[in-house]
Amino acid sequence: MEKITSLQNPKIKDAARLHDRKERRETDLFLIEGYRELLRCVQAKQTIQTLFFCPEFFLGDNERSLMAQTGATLIECSKEVFAKLSYRDRPDGLIAVAPQLHRTLDDLATMLSKKKTAPFLVIAESIEKPGNLGTILRSCDAAGVDGVIVCDPTTDIHNPNVVRSSVGTLFTQFVVEAKSEETLRFLKQKGISIVAATPHAKLTFTKADFTGPLAIAVGTEQIGLTDAWMQKADIQVRIPMFGMADSLNVASATTLVLYEVIRQRTSP
Amino acid sequence: MEKITSLQNPKIKDAARLHDRKERRETDLFLIEGYRELLRCVQAKQTIQTLFFCPEFFLGDNERSLMAQTGATLIECSKEVFAKLSYRDRPDGLIAVAPQLHRTLDDLATMLSKKKTAPFLVIAESIEKPGNLGTILRSCDAAGVDGVIVCDPTTDIHNPNVVRSSVGTLFTQFVVEAKSEETLRFLKQKGISIVAATPHAKLTFTKADFTGPLAIAVGTEQIGLTDAWMQKADIQVRIPMFGMADSLNVASATTLVLYEVIRQRTSP
Repeated sequence: MEKITSLQNPKIKDAARLHDRKERRETDLFLIEGYRELLRCVQAKQTIQTLFFCPEFFLGDNERSLMAQTGATLIECSKEVFAKLSYRDRPDGLIAVAPQLHRTLDDLATMLSKKKTAPFLVIAESIEKPGNLGTILRSCDAAGVDGVIVCDPTTDIHNPNVVRSSVGTLFTQFVVEAKSEETLRFLKQKGISIVAATPHAKLTFTKADFTGPLAIAVGTEQIGLTDAWMQKADIQVRIPMFGMADSLNVASATTLVLYEVIRQRTSP
Repeated sequence: MEKITSLQNPKIKDAARLHDRKERRETDLFLIEGYRELLRCVQAKQTIQTLFFCPEFFLGDNERSLMAQTGATLIECSKEVFAKLSYRDRPDGLIAVAPQLHRTLDDLATMLSKKKTAPFLVIAESIEKPGNLGTILRSCDAAGVDGVIVCDPTTDIHNPNVVRSSVGTLFTQFVVEAKSEETLRFLKQKGISIVAATPHAKLTFTKADFTGPLAIAVGTEQIGLTDAWMQKADIQVRIPMFGMADSLNVASATTLVLYEVIRQRTSP
């Protein structure tokens, strides 16, 4: 098996370049770092192309069996080389290169047509911070959301920090990247109501009716949803605030609304 | 007014060192960067010692009036110097040096004795990531929590990224740093029930009774609360999970429980 010890090795240089968005777009590849993230990628049967590993960083005993399950080309790296490729403070010895995920609204429609329950979607419009987008994906997984549509992405879903903060739920979720316009048409066509949280709404989010087909829409950290979305929202709700700052982190706010949907759908 | 144009200026070097925890501890000072953060600091009447500013980075028109309200020594910096001091990608031209906040459990007891409602506290045990601790503080502000006790801190509350991700709610909140042992004694003495979220609990968090005096306790990102806390928890609750990853970000989970307390206390 190949072992790379030089920082100048072209395979390392090519992989390291995938930290950059432009490079990801041009190659249609991205990086998946970490045991938990790779595990969920394998569970979701996503293709993995190359797997760089460094046993000196392994934290447990299951790394080699996971490596075998990936079906990827395995390349061992020296500690120094692996550290260069890693974007973590404490690497765990596994970084993969994989083809990007490209699901469409048509794919989502097909998936939803097989479900028996009312659609439960999340729209993330132009979220800026990868950590927030990843945390939203993690909450969507926990809440059992059917799918997430990332609209007009500011941060692409293949950003290494999205993968990391999603703890691999990027792979367990049905994630679509799409334009706002086509997404608005899609939702209307399917009869899915848009829910928007805004400080200007009168209705408290725990008093709204969340039992029908829903898409919870959330916008940028700075300004929230754009007018295009806010004006099309069928249900506008308010999250009550009792402090001085009058604001929640976007992922926290999303999680609140998701779990209110669950509370209403599961409570007698 | 003084204007600094040299990166070697000792005032800049001293301030830049406050990015480092050891330096913060030794000097008992910390950095507050950003307009919103400083505004809340001023609103909360916290002392500010020195304010470095750089008009070229200002985003609005209110910076100078805020500067005047701080009562701090004002020091203008060149763009290059300010960028060195800043820890943000997009600095907004304001960074202050202030004495650290040191509130005690006794201070908290005095504050609570003046309240007429059932105490509503949050315990954050050994949170590792500054971003998570700051996001928790932000949710605590939104939920109108009476106070936050940061126990056995892994990340100190004066970390620049706590200030940033709290969006300044570090100042609007009553935040105490304390040892777990003394905090457990304090809560017992005051008759405040400890609520812990754990996947092992049978009771769903929306079914628990959150109307009495409460402290919501949350633990590290990796392992949650330590046994010391989990065993003393009066109410153990479960957040239902419907996905493959079976986990939420610690700040998201905290926000859910805080808003369930609010829902129960404000609903008829």
